[in-house]
This record gives sequence, C-alpha cells and structure tokens, in this order.
Amino acid sequence: MEENKEQSKSALKKAEKAAQMAAKKAEKAAKQATLPVVGGKKADDIIGITVKKSENFSQWYQEVVLKAELIEYYTEISGFFIMRPATMYIWNVIRKWFQEHIDELGVEETNFPMFLSQKSLEKEKEHVEGFAPELAWVTKAGDKDLEVPVAVRPTSEAVMYPWKPDYAKWIRSHRDLPFRLNQWNSVVRWEAKQTTPFLRAREFMWQEGHTAHLTEQAAGEEVLQILEFYAGVYEQLLAVPVVRGRKTEAEKFAGGYYTTTVEGYIPSNGRGIQGATSHCLGQNFSKMFDITVEDPAEKGKHIHVWQNSWGLSTRVIGVMVMIHGDDKGLVLPPRIAKIQSILIPVGLTAKMSAEEKDAHMKKVDELLATLKKAGIRADVDTREGYTPAWKFNDWELKGVPLRIEFGPKDAAKDVVSYARRDTGEKGTIPIAELTTKVPELLETIQQDMYNKAEASFREHRLKIEKWDDVVPALDAKNVVIIPHCLVPDCEDKIKELTTGRSDEAAEGPESQKAPSMGMKSLCIPFEQPEGLVKGETKCLNPECSRLAEQWCMFGRSY
Amino acid sequence: MEENKEQSKSALKKAEKAAQMAAKKAEKAAKQATLPVVGGKKADDIIGITVKKSENFSQWYQEVVLKAELIEYYTEISGFFIMRPATMYIWNVIRKWFQEHIDELGVEETNFPMFLSQKSLEKEKEHVEGFAPELAWVTKAGDKDLEVPVAVRPTSEAVMYPWKPDYAKWIRSHRDLPFRLNQWNSVVRWEAKQTTPFLRAREFMWQEGHTAHLTEQAAGEEVLQILEFYAGVYEQLLAVPVVRGRKTEAEKFAGGYYTTTVEGYIPSNGRGIQGATSHCLGQNFSKMFDITVEDPAEKGKHIHVWQNSWGLSTRVIGVMVMIHGDDKGLVLPPRIAKIQSILIPVGLTAKMSAEEKDAHMKKVDELLATLKKAGIRADVDTREGYTPAWKFNDWELKGVPLRIEFGPKDAAKDVVSYARRDTGEKGTIPIAELTTKVPELLETIQQDMYNKAEASFREHRLKIEKWDDVVPALDAKNVVIIPHCLVPDCEDKIKELTTGRSDEAAEGPESQKAPSMGMKSLCIPFEQPEGLVKGETKCLNPECSRLAEQWCMFGRSY
Repeated sequence: MEENKEQSKSALKKAEKAAQMAAKKAEKAAKQATLPVVGGKKADDIIGITVKKSENFSQWYQEVVLKAELIEYYTEISGFFIMRPATMYIWNVIRKWFQEHIDELGVEETNFPMFLSQKSLEKEKEHVEGFAPELAWVTKAGDKDLEVPVAVRPTSEAVMYPWKPDYAKWIRSHRDLPFRLNQWNSVVRWEAKQTTPFLRAREFMWQEGHTAHLTEQAAGEEVLQILEFYAGVYEQLLAVPVVRGRKTEAEKFAGGYYTTTVEGYIPSNGRGIQGATSHCLGQNFSKMFDITVEDPAEKGKHIHVWQNSWGLSTRVIGVMVMIHGDDKGLVLPPRIAKIQSILIPVGLTAKMSAEEKDAHMKKVDELLATLKKAGIRADVDTREGYTPAWKFNDWELKGVPLRIEFGPKDAAKDVVSYARRDTGEKGTIPIAELTTKVPELLETIQQDMYNKAEASFREHRLKIEKWDDVVPALDAKNVVIIPHCLVPDCEDKIKELTTGRSDEAAEGPESQKAPSMGMKSLCIPFEQPEGLVKGETKCLNPECSRLAEQWCMFGRSY
Repeated sequence: MEENKEQSKSALKKAEKAAQMAAKKAEKAAKQATLPVVGGKKADDIIGITVKKSENFSQWYQEVVLKAELIEYYTEISGFFIMRPATMYIWNVIRKWFQEHIDELGVEETNFPMFLSQKSLEKEKEHVEGFAPELAWVTKAGDKDLEVPVAVRPTSEAVMYPWKPDYAKWIRSHRDLPFRLNQWNSVVRWEAKQTTPFLRAREFMWQEGHTAHLTEQAAGEEVLQILEFYAGVYEQLLAVPVVRGRKTEAEKFAGGYYTTTVEGYIPSNGRGIQGATSHCLGQNFSKMFDITVEDPAEKGKHIHVWQNSWGLSTRVIGVMVMIHGDDKGLVLPPRIAKIQSILIPVGLTAKMSAEEKDAHMKKVDELLATLKKAGIRADVDTREGYTPAWKFNDWELKGVPLRIEFGPKDAAKDVVSYARRDTGEKGTIPIAELTTKVPELLETIQQDMYNKAEASFREHRLKIEKWDDVVPALDAKNVVIIPHCLVPDCEDKIKELTTGRSDEAAEGPESQKAPSMGMKSLCIPFEQPEGLVKGETKCLNPECSRLAEQWCMFGRSY
C-alpha cells in the first residue's frame, strides 16, 4: 500500500475531484429545482445520486453523504467535515446506547483538557512516535509566542496519565480499582493521507475510555466486555456484521500491550475496515507515569496498575453508509433512523373538491398520530408544490426505512400502502393493524439488513491455504484468512508481494486503484478456523520460512 | 478594575498560592489519613475545608471545588481544569434539561470543526477584535509549518457563518426559517487574566446555539425564549436566582446587535456575575457573509436573515458552588445531586453480636431499596474502618443534600433520623412514610435553598439615587441600580470613579482587593424600578451631564 500510495492517491484525487464537481453541479441543479417551488410551481426533476455504487464507489459514497445531508465539507480548512443534524441524530443514538452499557460497568464521565504538553508527550516514546507526525501544535496565543508549545490531543493517554496530581492521585488504594473513566470529545490527527468523510478526518468525534485494574486478568476481561459493546453498536444498531479479533504486533496500538478489534467489510470494493478498538495497555503507561497501588497480598509492596483504553468514533457511520446504501442513496437501519416511517399523501387529483381533500388530509393526520402513539418515529410530508414521486425520491435519498403512502383508493379499502427502503418491496397494511404491523415490519427490515450484510461478509471471508490463490481472491473482492507466523517483517513482505500484482484486471475508475493495493493484516479472529496444525503448518508467505502461529485475516483495507 | 488589575492580581495570586499550598498539605494529610485504612485501622481525622467562607472566600472556593472532587488542576498547562465525574453529572443534568427545551423549539444538533481560518476571521472585524488577543493558533502539524495558521474556536460564529457551501447554503428559502442549530463542545480563550475554576478558564465546555430568522421580531422572540431557559437552569435546577436584562452597548457581545443576560450575585463578596447570554446578532453577520433569503412579500428581492447566538457554559456550576457552599464544603441542590440522600448505618457497637449486626444491615439494605424504588438517587456508605462521624463529614464536604442515619435505636422506633445539608436541621421520619416524606423533604430543601439565595440577592440589590451612596453600598456587598445614560464613555468614567475609593475600609485578605475594584454595568434589568422620569432624571454619574435613559444595574463583578 505504501509503495503505490502516490499512484492510488492521484487516482483517488481524480475521483474526488470528479465527485466534488458532480456535487457542485448537483447542488446548482438542486437550487434551480427548488427555487421555482417558492413561486408555487412543481419541480419533478429531483437530483439524486449521479453514479452507480457498483461503477464508481468512491464518488457514490461522497455524493450519498453530502446529498443525504449527513456531512458538509468544511471548505475553509481541508480535511475537516461538518456533522449535520442527520449525523448527530445517529451519533446520539449510539452514544446513549453505549453510555447505558458502560454506566452499568461503573464507568464515570470526565472531561480532560484538549491540549497536552511536550513534556508529558516525551515520557512515552513508543506511543509518541505513533502520533508525532499528526500532532497539531499551538505555538501562539493572540500575538504572543507560547513559552512551551502545546499539542491538540490525538488521544488522551498522554493528557490523562502523566502526572501525580491528577489521574495517578485518584487511585490511592487497590480498593479504588477498577478505576474507569470515559470522555466524549473530539480529537485531532492532522493526517497527510487523503481524508474521507467519517473514515478519515483531521478531527473526529469519539469516546475514549481509560481504566485501571489490579491484575492483567481483570484488565483483559474488561477489554473484551467493551469490545462486545462495540460489536453491539455495529450489529444491533447499525445492522453491520463484524469479526472480533486481536490485532497483530505490527498493527496494535502504539505503546500498548495488545489491541482487540472489530473488523468490518465493504462488499463494493472488497476492502476490510477497522471498526473500533479496545486496547490493553498493560503496565507500560503505569510504569512510565508511576501509577501504583499497594499490593493487597503483600503489605508495603507497590504494584503498577494494568490499564486499558478503548475508543469508538463516528467512523461507524461511514461504514454503515457504505454497506447499506444503494443507487438511490442512503439506507438507514430503523433503529438509528430519526424518521423511521414517512407518511406521504397520494392520489389527490385536481378533480377532487377542497372538502374531499381536507377530509383525506384529516385521515392522514390521524394515521400519523396512530403511528406516533405506537412509538414509531414517524413524520408526514405535506410539502406543497412537489409531486408524490419527487417526495418518494427525496426520502429514499435520505434513507428513511419505510414509506407509507395513503391515497383515496387506500382509504376506500381501509389500508395503507408501503414500500420498504431496503428491498423496494411493496404491500398494504390494514389500518386496524398499523400499530402492530409497522413495528414488526421495521424489525424485519433491521434484521434483513443485517442478514444480507452478514451473508455478504461470510461469503467473502475466504480461508486460503495456497499462496497463489491470495491475489485472485482479493481481486474478487474477498478478504482472506491465512496461516501466518504473526511476525511484523513477514506482514511487510506480504504487503509488498500483493501490491500492484493485478493491473491487468483493471477496468473502470474503481478498479484502477483497488488492485494495486497490497493487503495488510486486519486481525487474528477469535473464532479460528480448523486445520492449522501447530508446529507443522507453514506461514503462507512463500518467502517466509517460519511456522504458522494462527489463522490471520488479511485484506485490502481502509 | 483595569487600573488596579496589577494590584488585585498580585493579591489574587497570593491567595491562590496559599490555597494551592493548603490543598497540597490537605492532600498529603488525606493520603496519610486514608492509608492506614487499607490495613484495617480507623482514621477519624477528616481533612475538610481549612478556611471559613466569610474569612477568605477565594481560598475557600478553591478548596471546595478541589476537595468536593469537582475539578482538578491541570498542572501541565496553566489555566486549564479537569472536570471530574461529580461535575460531569451536574453538567449532564443541565444538558439534558436544556436539550429537551430546545428540542421543543425545533433546534437541531450539529458539530462544526474546532478550527477557524484566518480568512474567515478577518471578515468580521468588530467580532474578531473582541477575541483576537485570546486566540490559540495552530501553526504546525507534526514538524511541518502550516501554510496558513488556524485558530481554535473561541466561539463558532466565524466557523459557521462564513461561507457559501455550508451554513448559508442550508438556508435556501424563507421557508427554511427559523433555522436553528446548536452544538455542545468546548472552546478555547487563552485568557491572560487570572483563571478560576469554572468561572474563567482557557478551555471551557458550553453549548452554542446559532439561529437565523426572517424578521427582527422573530429573532427577538427567540432571544428571550432562550434567556428564559437559561434563567430556568439557574433557578429551577441550581436554586440560584438571577436578574434578567439587557447588556449596555459597552458590555454587549462583540459584533452583535444586542445582548440579553441573566446576572447572578455572590453574597460573600457582593460581586455580580454574568450567568449566561443570549445575543441577537442582527444582520451584521448575514451581511458580512451574505446569508439571504427571498423576501416572501416581494418576489426577487433578497433580504439578509436576522441571526441569534446564545451560550451557556460550565460557569453555572461555579456560581452554584459559590452561592450555596458553606464552611463544611459543597451544598448541592437536590435536583442536580447525583446522590440525593446518603444512608449511613450508625450505633453498631462492639458489644453487638455478628448476628445482630447482620440483621441491622439487612434492614439498611431494605431502606436503600425503598428509597431507590421511590425514585430517590440514594446510596449507602458501608465503608469499614471509618466512624459515622468521619462519614458525616465526608458526605457533607461533597454536598449530599440529605443524610439519613439508621441505628438500632431508630430501628426500635421504626424511624430513620435525618440531617439536612443546607440548614443542618435534624429530625426523624417513620419508615412507613419514607417514600412520601423523603421526596417532599428534598423538594423543600431545593425550594429553601432558592428562597435563601433569592432573599439575599433581593436585599443586596439597592436602588440608589445619590452618587455618594454608591461606594458605601458596594463596600457593604451590594450591587446597585442607578439611573444611567447608557453611554459607554460614562461607564468608563463610573468605573474609574468607583475604583480604589475605600482602601480605608480594608481588613483581612479578601477586602484588601475587593474595595479597590471599580464597578461596571451588569445589565439593564427588564424589570425597571419606578421613579425614573424620562427627560428629567439625570444620569447618576456626577461628571456626566446627560439625562438618564434607564435604571442600570452596576456592581463589582467577576
């Protein structure tokens, strides 16, 4: 990946530029399309997504996040994005869910300053090296130079752990353990790489948990509890399947002991994507910053605490968009949709009298009230000057899971008509059954979305035992699980060996860059396949002479 | 105030240093006091607040916020504070309450980047000048200089309004108005002035609302709606009375049209304190950044929108601490207390058998369950190795509103004993009436705390009609309401005339600095006293020849 960075970067830039041009054009067209409405005219030419997901995935993604009003580019400073209300709604659902779960664990909320000092940074070398190139340095206040520059946090280990009067002081006795803090904030990592909405930004929102434990075992248990919450955010809220596993030494958190992760998969380009990570920091930081408690088993002996840190960012939203979206735009799982069901009056023809229309609209209001009473997040689209077809497109673009149409013909039969956003499936529901059938249908949509994504990930996670099968598998949009020695050098070699090998397969702008990317390790899945014989099975890398330690999942990745 | 800044600064510094030394000493003592407990011994010497509120208010405050575990100094970078879980709990109660109220108004949540560009800053001169000396400038990323430095937001007007593709674009038609956004974040203002926990910090948490309206009237209505919510946070949650009013031209928000405010009062030193502000920005920013809609009354004509911005910060917590706290520590109003009632088993003597103790503790558990079931945020203190008296002090220090004691004597009478934190009043409650009497008592405490603070503010808000009465009134810890011309120059003169006039009254470290401070305008109260005759009553400033426009509240202030 590193080797072909320039190449793929220029391709990415081209694609992005095209996307931005298209977005601008669409914006202009949208303005023209909506402007006449103010004057009362109809405007049927909705501007949807201009490219197919299968044909130009990266442009498709950028159009979806813009047009579904999830984000906006911050044009003043590159690499930054504005989170619009549609995004904040989803993030708040996730925040609430996760907060409730960590509340039960006894995690407490804090807020530490956003800056860290050079001094505390210098304490933990390994950790610092990982972040140094991306630190944003404040060197001036007003027109005065600061005596000592301060950096905006890229993460808060070096903000929270370093010094006596704070974190270390709060832990006085082993009876204060486990000691668990969490904060919701944003961090800054001034990426040199190409940024992508949600997936890679120079500032992003997340939560960061920081905890201390008496033993490795206690720390390890929490690492997995938290990882399971992260899996829950993906699977239960976002309908996104993930693989749970441990990062290899090469890919673990800088300065940590080990890193666990949930890994996702983007079917459109076959890439893996890191979902969220839960780290055991071991005693590295507690030794560096001298955070100790008296050993309960031996008076007078002080032991360094075992620490964890764990973070989940708004990246989860990008993964969800990529997996579920389609050529019409965003597709939201019902559990995180602000509007789960949009009600659209239809069939109100010019021939109808004002009284007939009013009577119908009164029924529409009743339907809305019924849906809301049943606990459904429902809304009605009564905008004038737009045809039902225009409204259908508009709500599809924004991903609303269930459209309910109601016209005079429906009214005559005491039913509503519906259309599922995920499958396009249409049907009717008797009005009398609305309060039970709609929640059921929303649950079905949630489940079906997960099942579809899960089947796709399962089918594209190939257990591979011959090296020659690797690149063809990647080219066919799979991630691979291979026997591996877990040595960092070998990972580098594997990346090199799988880079730029299949340029002959290139077609279309997407594959122009994808095949040139080497694969890297995603995780060592906790669920190990059968067939690896310790001391016998060789590492799959043909240039590696070591024995395989475990099955390791590799893939092209974000 | 400006004139005697150096003088009062050095006094403040001295007081702070003393507070920090005392805190360090207390810390050390606390460590010694708690350490033996690990070994199972008793430690009765609790380290509470070491000075009286009435004798050294500034040290008292610093000890309370530290020892009640609300904040911690961020020793690495001066002027920054760590918000501990006790603070975050209070802030989250306020956040939830305020969010529910603005949700009803249709305000939507966003998150804009934390940086602003030099270019957008330069657009609105007046606004920029207000913040320029306090801007934290990022000039480097990693080891590379940024081509254009970026500043950390001191507030987000210049982040959100400046450019077409974002804020302005979202408002396309007058039908999109009112357009209301809010974000919860932290902002950085690199103060040169002495910082104080909660009241003045280089980074602080707040919410900032930014809205756009079609007319001045619509904007003005919202300004007052929001101000009323801010008053609600103080009065209904924090039991703190405020005066609603408008800021004078001299004190309004830089670049705005007018500023409304809720103003508080600190009885201990007689100073006024700005509580929270709701600004009408007028069309200043919309003209600067060209945010327009088509006039619904006249096709083709574009009008600049009317904008508001409004913010409430964690300062509210500092005000609450200053007003309610006492010589024993923090006093929390029940509505914002994480633990409303702490249950402490008492009277368990060495003579009792293990069975008797177990039986008693089982009853304690039942009491806790009963309290929780009644919706009371209750907890029990079963820590071993501490006497009840030590526990009483500890929970008093932390401000828990209601202590419930339960010993064998109480059990024999089927009652619990209680002690109110605010008044120290003691009594008993029959166990059978616990679920009704405790919530009633908590409500009474909330109300009494408000009433006490309200009476104090009312008594110390003096309507003054003779200039010679002003300084004596300030020295007697009052704020004053005087007839005023509302001209900025006159305010400067008043500050000058009231500065350093009563050094002869100095006694003790607190008054060494307080009397030297001049008074500034706090607000023009919406509720105007009687007696000002327009065109007749003169401005109270003896060196001002203008007529009075309104009654204006002045005071020494934070």
